[in-house]
Amino acid sequence: MITVLEREGLEIKIAPDAPIVMIGEKINPTGHRKLSEALEQRNFDYIRELAQRQIDSGAHILDVNASIPGADEARLLPEVVKIVAEQAAVPLCIDSNSADALEAALKVCPGKPLVNSVNGEKAKLERVLPLVRDRGAAVIGLTMDDSGIPGTAEKRLEIAQLILDRAVKIGIAAEDVVIDPLVLTVGADQQAALVTLQTIRAVRERLGVNINLGASNVSFGLPERQTINQAFLALSFSAGASCVITDPARLAGTILACDLLLGRDPYGKRFLIHVRKTRQAG
Amino acid sequence: MITVLEREGLEIKIAPDAPIVMIGEKINPTGHRKLSEALEQRNFDYIRELAQRQIDSGAHILDVNASIPGADEARLLPEVVKIVAEQAAVPLCIDSNSADALEAALKVCPGKPLVNSVNGEKAKLERVLPLVRDRGAAVIGLTMDDSGIPGTAEKRLEIAQLILDRAVKIGIAAEDVVIDPLVLTVGADQQAALVTLQTIRAVRERLGVNINLGASNVSFGLPERQTINQAFLALSFSAGASCVITDPARLAGTILACDLLLGRDPYGKRFLIHVRKTRQAG
Repeated sequence: MITVLEREGLEIKIAPDAPIVMIGEKINPTGHRKLSEALEQRNFDYIRELAQRQIDSGAHILDVNASIPGADEARLLPEVVKIVAEQAAVPLCIDSNSADALEAALKVCPGKPLVNSVNGEKAKLERVLPLVRDRGAAVIGLTMDDSGIPGTAEKRLEIAQLILDRAVKIGIAAEDVVIDPLVLTVGADQQAALVTLQTIRAVRERLGVNINLGASNVSFGLPERQTINQAFLALSFSAGASCVITDPARLAGTILACDLLLGRDPYGKRFLIHVRKTRQAG
Repeated sequence: MITVLEREGLEIKIAPDAPIVMIGEKINPTGHRKLSEALEQRNFDYIRELAQRQIDSGAHILDVNASIPGADEARLLPEVVKIVAEQAAVPLCIDSNSADALEAALKVCPGKPLVNSVNGEKAKLERVLPLVRDRGAAVIGLTMDDSGIPGTAEKRLEIAQLILDRAVKIGIAAEDVVIDPLVLTVGADQQAALVTLQTIRAVRERLGVNINLGASNVSFGLPERQTINQAFLALSFSAGASCVITDPARLAGTILACDLLLGRDPYGKRFLIHVRKTRQAG
């Protein structure tokens, strides 16, 4: 299945066996003090800078999260979405736990965005999926529910199936549902990455929808995180992930190398252009 | 199937889903002027140094190749094998195109070594396989023959099948045949890595034998070779390779990260010990 996102004539296609789509993760204040302060002070220059830097590093889509303690997210998120959309002419991925904030942000967001995220929690599905449908957006579904993140691929597949069924039932096209199988750190559980890789394979084979991955949790608390993250990305693409939320400045090289190795980059053109740009910048 | 190599009670097991076995590639004068000169001058200190460095970086087996122009390889290779065996108490991988040199080196090599390599050429199979059998060694079979390296996975699988059949027919156990599906640079052919990955899958599924890979050719002539090689290793392990000829100083981190992510390193113990050693050395 092909998930198509759109912005003023620019289409970004997420598809199995197509080049990996990179969602820039940096506009998210969680654990990012400088951005938290910028959001508190409505210092939008820093946000513009983060947007531009990620585009320069190869991001195809930008994630936008404006969740800071004490702020009225339903007012702040649309403001930030507008700023980022002005700076970067790419589709956005609107990221919030608050349905009110998502609703408000979807009203001002241009093009066809991604909504990040729903999960298997019933209340969440009931409230957010209609917003996605009414706006004609696509949605990321996380394989967790009220009981947390299951420890087996079978249970995660069940939640993915539930999210997909609910979405389709209310009128969202199956290709507009992207499943995120979630990954926990292998520092705490040596089976953590393996369960995620098994979930990717199962969702790809059984449901056929596209799969997104947040790639940096896997190495939390461990040394040499970059090496672990690089290896995990390649293993995930081999299993069938087609989209990744990541820091393109750190991981675009590995992602483009995987596209090249998997025969998805004719003449290595994208890889070579990336290397040239990075070297000029460095 | 499990390929067991042995040296004075130390067993190295190559097996699917087991930790990846690393064969140190550095004792090979091809394109390595300093080693060529050391071999010409019988400067064995440098060879001892190369052996030790690779063991310190995590090599489980050491490849030994002494092929320099004008030298009598059937005299030189056994000498070098003895030096390396003295320095490093691990199984060796005896590497030569000359059957006479292999024969002479096998006589002085301790333990149960690997022989690198035969391929689908009839003359080679007829001359080298009996040496492997008589010595009780294991052998690496390259998927090429008199016509060169086939461009498709099906043809490479056919050659692998031929090598395996011939080996078994003369009395070598199937588990003592390790297939190397070969990889060419993606710089020249964008399908090159993909054909190798398909061959790995096909050999693993259809023949069930272990698969070795030389991991650095894939990036020849390209920039950012380390990034490409790291990505290719992870993709190869995901496809089913269980052994790799590589420079452990450069790639052991990625290999151990893959073991960790694939659930083959309880508590991340091997990965963490490697990081600690590398940091102390650096």
